[in-house]
Amino acid sequence: MLRQLRPQSLRSPSRLVAACTRAYSIQANAASTVKLQDIDPSKLSILETTTPKELVPPTELVFGRTFTDHMLSLEWTASSGWLAPRITPYQNLSLDPASCVFHYAFECFEGMKAYKDTSGKVRLFRPTKNMERMNKSSARIALPTFDGAAMIELIAKFAALEKRFIPDARGYSLYLRPTMIGTQRTLGVGPPGSALLYVIASPVGPYYPTGFKAVSLEATDYAVRAWPGGVGDKKLGANYAPCIVPQLEAAKRGFHQNLWLFGDEEFVTEVGTMNMFVAIKNKETGQKELVTAPLDGTILEGVTRDSVLSLAREKLAPEGWIISERKYTMPELFEASKEGRLLEAFGAGTAAVVSPVRNISWKGNLVECGLRPDQEAGEVAQKMLDWISARQYGDEEHEWSYVVPGQ
Amino acid sequence: MLRQLRPQSLRSPSRLVAACTRAYSIQANAASTVKLQDIDPSKLSILETTTPKELVPPTELVFGRTFTDHMLSLEWTASSGWLAPRITPYQNLSLDPASCVFHYAFECFEGMKAYKDTSGKVRLFRPTKNMERMNKSSARIALPTFDGAAMIELIAKFAALEKRFIPDARGYSLYLRPTMIGTQRTLGVGPPGSALLYVIASPVGPYYPTGFKAVSLEATDYAVRAWPGGVGDKKLGANYAPCIVPQLEAAKRGFHQNLWLFGDEEFVTEVGTMNMFVAIKNKETGQKELVTAPLDGTILEGVTRDSVLSLAREKLAPEGWIISERKYTMPELFEASKEGRLLEAFGAGTAAVVSPVRNISWKGNLVECGLRPDQEAGEVAQKMLDWISARQYGDEEHEWSYVVPGQ
Repeated sequence: MLRQLRPQSLRSPSRLVAACTRAYSIQANAASTVKLQDIDPSKLSILETTTPKELVPPTELVFGRTFTDHMLSLEWTASSGWLAPRITPYQNLSLDPASCVFHYAFECFEGMKAYKDTSGKVRLFRPTKNMERMNKSSARIALPTFDGAAMIELIAKFAALEKRFIPDARGYSLYLRPTMIGTQRTLGVGPPGSALLYVIASPVGPYYPTGFKAVSLEATDYAVRAWPGGVGDKKLGANYAPCIVPQLEAAKRGFHQNLWLFGDEEFVTEVGTMNMFVAIKNKETGQKELVTAPLDGTILEGVTRDSVLSLAREKLAPEGWIISERKYTMPELFEASKEGRLLEAFGAGTAAVVSPVRNISWKGNLVECGLRPDQEAGEVAQKMLDWISARQYGDEEHEWSYVVPGQ
Repeated sequence: MLRQLRPQSLRSPSRLVAACTRAYSIQANAASTVKLQDIDPSKLSILETTTPKELVPPTELVFGRTFTDHMLSLEWTASSGWLAPRITPYQNLSLDPASCVFHYAFECFEGMKAYKDTSGKVRLFRPTKNMERMNKSSARIALPTFDGAAMIELIAKFAALEKRFIPDARGYSLYLRPTMIGTQRTLGVGPPGSALLYVIASPVGPYYPTGFKAVSLEATDYAVRAWPGGVGDKKLGANYAPCIVPQLEAAKRGFHQNLWLFGDEEFVTEVGTMNMFVAIKNKETGQKELVTAPLDGTILEGVTRDSVLSLAREKLAPEGWIISERKYTMPELFEASKEGRLLEAFGAGTAAVVSPVRNISWKGNLVECGLRPDQEAGEVAQKMLDWISARQYGDEEHEWSYVVPGQ
């Protein structure tokens, strides 16, 4: 009853990456044998609005609620590849109700910001990281990939066009939301034959306008965000809608966010929609350690996470800190907290940069995370915000900051 | 450093259900203290098309590619609840590019069919099950719930209006796709303040126009579809896009579908986007057993799955079959196949009803699933198709068949 086939390789993340790459090739090849067009910034057309919006006063800005005058759009088809990019007035999308984005969540996105430096120049922050991640996200769900450098060129032009929306004050920026959706108009579950990549922009104010405000978390023990072999490390829409109920539950009991755990060991993974960092003093040696969960497929590859780790290795390690990407558990934090060795904890993400954590509700205990009652941020969180901001706003010239050309 | 809080209940699926229900109440309550409107079929308005479509010849129908003249739509807002239902000509949706459905996969759907019986009456099949499941799906992602009976009344009216699209031949039907999407136009990750529930319809032919065609599967060992505490038991868009790459990978190696496994034990869970059934002869007693995986939170609660189980208990159990919802593994199937005890295997879903499986590629072996080379379906699969079809088309009068009133 059995017939021998070639041996299969074992479970491995690299095998999935290879599978994704191959899948995209299949898709492209199936549609056409000619070379598909990649994104070509030289073909950009710009149709400027004739009814510019009135600016919202900076202090009234709410994250992602108001948008700029224009949007950047690129269509893709399996037979032609990427068509000519267009900047047009911000406008509704008109989509067939059978479009696969509405049924099977063919969608991924990025969150990035444009900053205005003291000389008035618009700068992006590590856009290469966002484009790399977006390509990984899209490949994982059989959406097309693209030339990241070409896309950065277009995003830079778009951000420069919308410069007037960025208030001239520290802490303000233009939140950019590259989004890719599958637009095929059939209900069969298969790789989309067409897609739309678009970028919209929303001016945003400082996350903590009156200084840090430490948050209280509730550890979620009845729902799981991500798992090995799943898609929790990709920035897919699919990872977000299921997060709302646990957030609402935490809010109902007076907590600001929920904390995602994994497995019987209760590994700490992410906080709400941010990566999580903790600073712990070693029980034996007293040495300080900055810890975040490793990229094992269940953790989003956060750009801010990467920036925090890089800065920690550059500036904290020489002071004697150990910088660790390793698994850590709630019992470990509980013990460290009891013994006064949990120095601080914070979330890291594009919106807040860092978000200090006051305490974590877990198994009937409130695990305090090292802040005094009158203190809203730990030393590392404060330093990270300062260090990262300095590079975002160009106070410190650094390769992470991409100055939009032609200004 | 610690403060005692109330004890938390342990991990349990019922706790998550309760959490979802509560979350929805929070959302509704937050928006308004007045009682929100539920769906009211008496408020239905119908705007008929002035340009009826030409019918596609039945033999040229492709699943989910062509649609009927109209669509049914209901808007929901957090402040008012469900607004008046509308049947309008089939038309594009016009949505703000910031709409939360594009970014965070606020979307869930159902798959159901309308059949024409021998007297020409339109019938739905177990629509209550679909509405129950859709309410569970929507609650899990903080979308609104609704009165299922009221929605069935509307879907029935819509199906009756589109009657001319259902060919007068056995095996044909009208595939109905209720879909709910979040339409809030902001990028903050939170419960949508507005939503759209719509139903589109696509005439479909028999899945196997020339009789069954058994499929070959590839067991996927590098990606995992669902996890306990995740959302794999809900009909969310989020569960579908991540399935494509493993399907394309299987197809590349000549297999029709992939088979999803779970855990180190290699539990068999689902096949592509269908539930999976196997018939095994007991090693000791020789007794026949029909097995499918239990609803442990990782398995979609298929309506066809439930129909197969009910019919098996009604008709196969009296013949001495054991009907089991239990976990089973690839090693168990491998051993049963080697020993000639794996009688048959099939997928179960709305599109195909049953889809017989010839073999499964697993760890370098091709596990044969009990079919002779000249045989395309096992005995149970054939009987199930006949039994279920008889109730779908009203040959057998049964409570599962809902005759659209007023015909």
